[in-house]
Amino acid sequence: MAELHRQSAVDIANAVRAGRVQAVEICASALAHIERIGSPDSGFIKIFRERALLRAEAVDKIVQAGLDPGRLAGVPFGVADHFDVALQPTTAGSRLSAEGPFAHRDAKAIMLLEAAGAVLVGRQNMDEFTYGFVTVNAHYGTTPNPHDKDRLAGGACGGSAVAVANETVPISLASDINGSIRIPAALCGVIGLAPTYGDFPNEGTQSLVESLDVVGPVARQIDDVVLVRDVLRDGAPERSAVPRGPLRFGRLKGWFDQNVEDPMRAAMKPVWEEFGRVSLDLKHVDLARAAASLIIAAEGANLHRASLVHDPGIYGATTRDRLLAGLLMPADDYLQAIRFQTWIRTRAQQLFEHCDVFITPAAPGFAPLIEDPFIEFDGVRTPARSHLGIYTQPISLMGLPSIVLPLAHSGPLPLGVQLIAAPGGEQTLFEAASLLFKNGIASVPGVPESQ
Amino acid sequence: MAELHRQSAVDIANAVRAGRVQAVEICASALAHIERIGSPDSGFIKIFRERALLRAEAVDKIVQAGLDPGRLAGVPFGVADHFDVALQPTTAGSRLSAEGPFAHRDAKAIMLLEAAGAVLVGRQNMDEFTYGFVTVNAHYGTTPNPHDKDRLAGGACGGSAVAVANETVPISLASDINGSIRIPAALCGVIGLAPTYGDFPNEGTQSLVESLDVVGPVARQIDDVVLVRDVLRDGAPERSAVPRGPLRFGRLKGWFDQNVEDPMRAAMKPVWEEFGRVSLDLKHVDLARAAASLIIAAEGANLHRASLVHDPGIYGATTRDRLLAGLLMPADDYLQAIRFQTWIRTRAQQLFEHCDVFITPAAPGFAPLIEDPFIEFDGVRTPARSHLGIYTQPISLMGLPSIVLPLAHSGPLPLGVQLIAAPGGEQTLFEAASLLFKNGIASVPGVPESQ
Repeated sequence: MAELHRQSAVDIANAVRAGRVQAVEICASALAHIERIGSPDSGFIKIFRERALLRAEAVDKIVQAGLDPGRLAGVPFGVADHFDVALQPTTAGSRLSAEGPFAHRDAKAIMLLEAAGAVLVGRQNMDEFTYGFVTVNAHYGTTPNPHDKDRLAGGACGGSAVAVANETVPISLASDINGSIRIPAALCGVIGLAPTYGDFPNEGTQSLVESLDVVGPVARQIDDVVLVRDVLRDGAPERSAVPRGPLRFGRLKGWFDQNVEDPMRAAMKPVWEEFGRVSLDLKHVDLARAAASLIIAAEGANLHRASLVHDPGIYGATTRDRLLAGLLMPADDYLQAIRFQTWIRTRAQQLFEHCDVFITPAAPGFAPLIEDPFIEFDGVRTPARSHLGIYTQPISLMGLPSIVLPLAHSGPLPLGVQLIAAPGGEQTLFEAASLLFKNGIASVPGVPESQ
Repeated sequence: MAELHRQSAVDIANAVRAGRVQAVEICASALAHIERIGSPDSGFIKIFRERALLRAEAVDKIVQAGLDPGRLAGVPFGVADHFDVALQPTTAGSRLSAEGPFAHRDAKAIMLLEAAGAVLVGRQNMDEFTYGFVTVNAHYGTTPNPHDKDRLAGGACGGSAVAVANETVPISLASDINGSIRIPAALCGVIGLAPTYGDFPNEGTQSLVESLDVVGPVARQIDDVVLVRDVLRDGAPERSAVPRGPLRFGRLKGWFDQNVEDPMRAAMKPVWEEFGRVSLDLKHVDLARAAASLIIAAEGANLHRASLVHDPGIYGATTRDRLLAGLLMPADDYLQAIRFQTWIRTRAQQLFEHCDVFITPAAPGFAPLIEDPFIEFDGVRTPARSHLGIYTQPISLMGLPSIVLPLAHSGPLPLGVQLIAAPGGEQTLFEAASLLFKNGIASVPGVPESQ
């Protein structure tokens, strides 16, 4: 019973709804597990113990009254540190708002999950203001990769992936601008979904870049991702149907075949043998990455202009320097990036006339070392901070939904694969993901030591 | 008969449809009138004589065959120089494209008017790339005000208003980013409509700022404006209905009461007595003007970046300097302007809970002198180029449709009044405009000498 919180969200909710276990027991066991690991290694940096236990009690009372507490009954979950939680300051991995103002209400996504019976237990570590790929936080510490504590968890929302990989919670909510859900999912060996822009509500999340930011789940089971999406969409109609007949898989030539580290290349080999027969060329992906960086730098800096001018000391040094650089960018470069974005979105959508799902690596390779954060491409050492997102950034700019899954035969550390669909094609992604799990190409690895 | 082209579009079309006059005669008489005045004083800088006469002949043949050539049968019209005309280079008041490329087809708005039987006779002078308020063009000369040749016609689309004021054509098509239709209409004593963004098709016009640009008509009769709008909207449903009961008029305090020259203040007095009883305060209009200037500078410069870098000598000196300044603007200022625009649009729409139509001056006063282009506010001389648009720029930024009408008792030169409605409220504007014409507050003055 102590380990029930390690089960999937679907299994926990079934057990709670059937009265086989109490939500309070699951919640207490999840909280104990989080505390046993400790912050920031657990992924969590704030725990809402009292709120969580009260909420779990309420779920149990609903069950005792013979009513249904919802499809996520008793499921403990965490959210990244930039989600509003009622009566808490929204810190977003920073010191900026640590003294307040306090959020008036929970972020909409939290409200929807809790309305379905889920139980928020805490907030998770991230790069300051979601601006980074490493979860090395100047204020809250570095959350390491649970598969190797000397390695990066990835970021920006690394704590959310680490918490799920550690099995402290079955699901986390995070957000993704150009890989913040998908990169840590890939490096920590869990599933991360970056849905179509606007698919999930992002009201009440402190976004760095409103024009690209999407809220999405991290989980260990594809069924949990499907369930969370269903709850978060709150009955909205689907934008597109799953194609009839077998899914048409495709490989993207050019950019997505380059800069792959050797272990990733080896792990992708059986994937390409199975799913890489159709190979399409998408040009100018390098420019899509550049455009994404420009848009993020400019919009992020604009959001912070007042604090940057009046209180620059409040920022971690890395974040401050990046934001200040953004403040100095010419509008012409920003507008050119926006113009390019419009152009490549049209081009990208045309790809789906030939395939339903494209498969790419999610990141260049294994999680880089914390003390030596570099990636090696063809013998050249490249800074990990600026290159972990090379396969996820352009996909966000193109407005395509994507999901990251752990590869089954990755070697000593997790490796992630990215599936990409046309806008609104989440159900197609899920069908493709289920297929990869079923035939043994994808598999969620356990963490090496049970904590 | 020689003077029939001086009638309204409605009257011309009725006469042509009834077979009382031939479209070819009207076309020839309009062309003769344009040539008599000469370029650039006529407003026209390019004449499509052969095309126009062929088109007019076709209209006559349709009438002779007993068929209906359309609601604008035989109506000659001109367009500003940035409208595509098939097989012509789109010069937009510049030398940039004088050698080509040649447009493949007419701008959509031209196609719609000609499909209703109208006859395009030529293209009209403007500030280079619509960037200006004076129609002082380094390549095509200065088109002066027909009411006083020593004075500015206003701009950017000054030629379009001058051609209509000169009675060479009953209607022109132009476009308005922050006053390019309304300012010359005000200074030349004609009617100019800047419709709701997106209301008319702008395909095939070379816009400086796509996010603000609207195509609209200039005319001498409100019925002609209504007819042209009807044709250009091509059966699209109305976005809002005219309010029931008498229209609620309002005055805008603050910005729109300041910086008014003495003759304008005197001319507005009877307007306020009749329509100024309800007076609302809209704050931060100065910032709306600043935001409009920033957005136009940044987006305009981005559109021209390649030519500015590779062929700066092709631009007139004034245009080049303004565009180069735009290239250097920080993205942060641009984004702040966009953020402010979103904010003030919401605020502006709330004004219409209390009133249906607001009335403001259209420009600070009389047309400034060409050789001494200054406006005098409370004894301070201010450059006309940067201040003619003070009442029109903020209205464009707020996304509100507006129409400019000539005041009846303006003194020696025309003065314009601006009516403003909620987005989609063009029919309300027309009802308000008709009322002002009916009760003698608005009236289109004749040009002093018949040319």
